[in-house]
Amino acid sequence: MKKIWMLVLITLLGVETYAQQKVRPVIVIHGGAGTIRKSEMTPEQEKAYTQALEEALKAGYTVLEKGGTSLEAVEKAIQVMEESPLFNAGRGCVLNNQGQPELDASIMNGKTLEAGAVAGVNRIKSPISAAKAVMQQSEHVMLVGKGAEIFAKSKGLEMVSPSYFIVEKRKKQLDKVKKKEKENKDKNTKSQWEDTNPDRKYGTVGCVALDQYGNLAAGTSTGGMMNKRYGRVGDAPIIGAGTYADNNGCGISATGHGEYFIRSAVAFRINALVQMKGLSVEEAAQQTIDFVGKLGGIGGVIVLDAKGNITMPFNSEGMYRGYINADKKMEILMYK
Amino acid sequence: MKKIWMLVLITLLGVETYAQQKVRPVIVIHGGAGTIRKSEMTPEQEKAYTQALEEALKAGYTVLEKGGTSLEAVEKAIQVMEESPLFNAGRGCVLNNQGQPELDASIMNGKTLEAGAVAGVNRIKSPISAAKAVMQQSEHVMLVGKGAEIFAKSKGLEMVSPSYFIVEKRKKQLDKVKKKEKENKDKNTKSQWEDTNPDRKYGTVGCVALDQYGNLAAGTSTGGMMNKRYGRVGDAPIIGAGTYADNNGCGISATGHGEYFIRSAVAFRINALVQMKGLSVEEAAQQTIDFVGKLGGIGGVIVLDAKGNITMPFNSEGMYRGYINADKKMEILMYK
Repeated sequence: MKKIWMLVLITLLGVETYAQQKVRPVIVIHGGAGTIRKSEMTPEQEKAYTQALEEALKAGYTVLEKGGTSLEAVEKAIQVMEESPLFNAGRGCVLNNQGQPELDASIMNGKTLEAGAVAGVNRIKSPISAAKAVMQQSEHVMLVGKGAEIFAKSKGLEMVSPSYFIVEKRKKQLDKVKKKEKENKDKNTKSQWEDTNPDRKYGTVGCVALDQYGNLAAGTSTGGMMNKRYGRVGDAPIIGAGTYADNNGCGISATGHGEYFIRSAVAFRINALVQMKGLSVEEAAQQTIDFVGKLGGIGGVIVLDAKGNITMPFNSEGMYRGYINADKKMEILMYK
Repeated sequence: MKKIWMLVLITLLGVETYAQQKVRPVIVIHGGAGTIRKSEMTPEQEKAYTQALEEALKAGYTVLEKGGTSLEAVEKAIQVMEESPLFNAGRGCVLNNQGQPELDASIMNGKTLEAGAVAGVNRIKSPISAAKAVMQQSEHVMLVGKGAEIFAKSKGLEMVSPSYFIVEKRKKQLDKVKKKEKENKDKNTKSQWEDTNPDRKYGTVGCVALDQYGNLAAGTSTGGMMNKRYGRVGDAPIIGAGTYADNNGCGISATGHGEYFIRSAVAFRINALVQMKGLSVEEAAQQTIDFVGKLGGIGGVIVLDAKGNITMPFNSEGMYRGYINADKKMEILMYK
């Protein structure tokens, strides 16, 4: 009898130890960086963005609390933002120079370094789910255009008409940009192209999560840049530029002027600074944003490591961002 | 009079010093890695590959000798290989699962970190030239599919019909692979997909060059994988995976099973190991190939730094490769 009680005690201690060993989940999101100023935001707008970010955070965190994986949490949080017309991803995305949506997304598993991405699609309702399907159900990492759509359909993903993504606000923005472009056509150089469209560069949504199993995942989804050239792919679907995750380094999702983020290999650069130079995520992310800034690029990143350390630096005026940390503290921020 | 002679002497000395300061050009190329065994190569095949690699090396080196830039040399050397049906790039590329060519290419300037890429195109005669045009004549880094073709045409690049790229040999290879795939359909898993097509993963061409101004450039061009899914994009057009160049680190072009090269961010990883950890290009490239190998990826890289150091490691049975170094020594290799 004594022996049985000893056994029960040992088992209880074992369960307790196991419970303590579980990693406390963390989730970080962004909803794009850019010209986000308190002076230009109405209380209603501020409330709408805050609510949407909170909804995305809580949806992802609930997945983690229920024992879901970081990959599932990243997909869920991003889907909430894809479905909100407030963000430049999924419904409400910006339009290309032909007035059409062209969506990009990617996702990465920090445990296995598996990754998936889609680009130039406008018939898949959730681009982040398509990226996850490419990772888990194909032999490839990246599928683009019609080929990506055929694949997504074959895997049973929800398909929509391109018009699903288009909201009135974006049509008006495109008209405005195109009008300005026409007015300035005589000086239609590279820099002028950038000058006329100062706002369109930065919209993207992203998420990095750490689950109770200690695994990181990161994902990014976007409509790209307003009035972008048909066929343009930015950093969001590029593994190593817009997204990267490695349990031994960190998970990263970027938002910004994608061309500069690709050239700087932003996501992998941060991971490399952590892994190869032993920098903290704060130092690594700040150094990388400074590097991009020197090239002329504007934007930001969210970064999370396997110990739950969070950093969210940016060199734009603002970045929609938020987190729920290991202590279950939630914070949502927009300005500097 | 004495003063004039002094002036002439000083000028001559100045010119001499300037001439000595010029960097001695270097060029490195690859024509793909894979199952390349001496036992399976006829003397005629060996001769044909040697000649084609020599032609590409010399074409690029001539550009450098005449004072051209490393970017121009990379474009030229790759074009020679794109036009040769021996390599899986441009004419003679492999075909996707719909029997169509889908070409990818990228290029990067190590001085400015500017980059350009195209993917999923089959109407632009020289994909590497299209990548260069995207870099130099657009506000974007990456264009895919029809959008990339519309852009290339608008910039006056030579356009062709997709049939230009298709050669009989590749049609037969695809038929063979598809037949095998059908036979094994009952066990059609991810690994089986790889098992049936052991040869198709590794074809790519690439070049890294160092010009007399001390600037590095790197480029890669490919038809991807035989029987790849329509819309699949590999590492070749991904800046940071298949191609990267930074004067302060090194220039890299990769060839191999692209999915693993994207997940490992191969090109930027090598550059990061050189820049952040101070490794030699040999150590950095070997560590990275070992890393990819552990994930399950097969292939190789060519790497060159601004001091003219060359390394060409691979974990496949062979890799078509060659260089002309700073001492004007040319070497062409195929096997281990």
